[in-house]
Amino acid sequence: MWAGRSFTLPVSTSDVQRVKLICHKRRSRQSNSNISKMDPKDDKRNASRCSSPVCVHNPHLDALKDDILYHFSLGTGTHNLSAMFGDVKFVCVGGSPWRMKSFIEYIAAELSMEDPKADYPNICAGTDRYAMYKIGPVLSVSHGMGIPSIAIMLHELIKLLHHAQCTDVTIIRIGTSGGIGLEPGTVVVTKQSVDPTFLPKFEQVILGKTVVRSTDLDQSLAEELLQCSKELNQFETVIGKTMCTLDFYEGQARLDGAFCSYSEQDKRDYLNKAYEAGVCNIEMESSVFAAMCKLSGLRAAVVCVTLLDRLKGDQLNSSHEVLRDYQQRPQILVGTYIKKQLKAKAARS
Amino acid sequence: MWAGRSFTLPVSTSDVQRVKLICHKRRSRQSNSNISKMDPKDDKRNASRCSSPVCVHNPHLDALKDDILYHFSLGTGTHNLSAMFGDVKFVCVGGSPWRMKSFIEYIAAELSMEDPKADYPNICAGTDRYAMYKIGPVLSVSHGMGIPSIAIMLHELIKLLHHAQCTDVTIIRIGTSGGIGLEPGTVVVTKQSVDPTFLPKFEQVILGKTVVRSTDLDQSLAEELLQCSKELNQFETVIGKTMCTLDFYEGQARLDGAFCSYSEQDKRDYLNKAYEAGVCNIEMESSVFAAMCKLSGLRAAVVCVTLLDRLKGDQLNSSHEVLRDYQQRPQILVGTYIKKQLKAKAARS
Repeated sequence: MWAGRSFTLPVSTSDVQRVKLICHKRRSRQSNSNISKMDPKDDKRNASRCSSPVCVHNPHLDALKDDILYHFSLGTGTHNLSAMFGDVKFVCVGGSPWRMKSFIEYIAAELSMEDPKADYPNICAGTDRYAMYKIGPVLSVSHGMGIPSIAIMLHELIKLLHHAQCTDVTIIRIGTSGGIGLEPGTVVVTKQSVDPTFLPKFEQVILGKTVVRSTDLDQSLAEELLQCSKELNQFETVIGKTMCTLDFYEGQARLDGAFCSYSEQDKRDYLNKAYEAGVCNIEMESSVFAAMCKLSGLRAAVVCVTLLDRLKGDQLNSSHEVLRDYQQRPQILVGTYIKKQLKAKAARS
Repeated sequence: MWAGRSFTLPVSTSDVQRVKLICHKRRSRQSNSNISKMDPKDDKRNASRCSSPVCVHNPHLDALKDDILYHFSLGTGTHNLSAMFGDVKFVCVGGSPWRMKSFIEYIAAELSMEDPKADYPNICAGTDRYAMYKIGPVLSVSHGMGIPSIAIMLHELIKLLHHAQCTDVTIIRIGTSGGIGLEPGTVVVTKQSVDPTFLPKFEQVILGKTVVRSTDLDQSLAEELLQCSKELNQFETVIGKTMCTLDFYEGQARLDGAFCSYSEQDKRDYLNKAYEAGVCNIEMESSVFAAMCKLSGLRAAVVCVTLLDRLKGDQLNSSHEVLRDYQQRPQILVGTYIKKQLKAKAARS
């Protein structure tokens, strides 16, 4: 039986080999009459593009008259994506819509682009699935919790950046996590995302069969972020492995979920093995984020603060003030990094 | 090596057998001095309880002084959960916060409990992870998109209902889905949730090992909902299998994601096999919802409208008005069902 046979997999096929690695460099299909004419400055910008585009790997997209980015409430037939997003160079993503709004306010101030009178409108106001904000070359997008939620967002974000003909885009996930053997408040820049057996891979089910994808992240970007944190000298930052799970409670060996069938010793043994394997922290999105960014040619990093040390407990019982302070750390580090990059670019040009 | 050995699993251990099936009937630990005294009516209500409680299966919970339901921004030490939620008999959950607010407004009107001047406050206003609304015996909670997001919500919801000493609770997920061989707008009541190989199981990774859980739903509740729809006679409703996936694009054989390595024929073959296996629709939460509700003794159903026929296309290009009409159908059916149940209960007492 087909279903039975299929279930005996995982097939360890590298998807990077399977996917036709042709980057569709076609122009975005901004064909709809509702769209205002593209910004003439775009031509100049396009002409200067000789570096990394944002790649889709899907020959079927060419057959679409319009591409509806349903969960963003945006589309090529209704929005001029090049005009709206063509200048994006940095994308920051995080779980919480509130945090991503707060990030855009922070970065606007950092880049001295803030307008005290202005509110930053949610570009995805037509839906409550995700929230999106933009200031200058920086885009801030929420992704909800867990691999499926961030994967939907990334499919549509990658298509958006592709349709908008963006180039040389750096994408950073800023988030929270449980630490392993680290002081709460430590920021972890992910070297590699690993699964719950500590292996660096992401399993994607396609047509009922499991395909294995790499979870490597950009090492030079991780090092640059670490260097940036050293110069900033405000909080401890480390580079290490991040374990990505599909569940917050049983999946992360917590003792405080609705169900728990293991002992405190079982939990301790598991987390100690994670520690020995080089895992610094645990969260729920990094594996698919790393896999999808790698496939699309995006330079990617994951920067998460640890809210507690899981070797010492499970419940998040620090005060709101302390947690708020911790949660601002990835945003401060990434904000400083973006500012530094833009300054360096301005000095070069 | 431990990690390697662990990875050679899945272990097909039934978790229902593994978990100690003792339902902790202890009273909720409403010990904190911040809490107002429990409603005296509670004693009467407790005395009459001879039916189904909401079960947690976690002996470690007893060791917690307070239980912080972090993603709800609620807790036993800060909120009187019995007073707030003790009368809950119906819980409706759905992905979108907006839709769950709209549901509570709808149900308030249906039950003639609405106050035209009143806004329905979000009980989880301290966080943007989930939204929660209540009117009388009906609780409405959003769960975001995908298995991990709904699983976090369900862990905390089950603990909340347990701490609040709720009994005889019915829980229904109302949502949207892609149909297979059905007219768009058809409502599907799930008979059984199946995985992408069409098998009725949910795999939960615990301490790095895979545990298989049943995805059976309450058959009598499904039949009652179908009967209710027949009486309502406003839209087509069927009972069938629902396929639950971890991804919206490649995981559901769509041709319009950022990546697609298969042909249109491959897609068609896969969806035809799903159709032959009895799959009526595809969504992203039903398997873990069924598994967790079964473990906790909650009477559970999944009611999703199909927004399109996946045998005919991938993109959601119906007008906003049509999609809005479709999205109201599960809410109308479940609202009618709840009203009917409460009327019948009132007639009996």
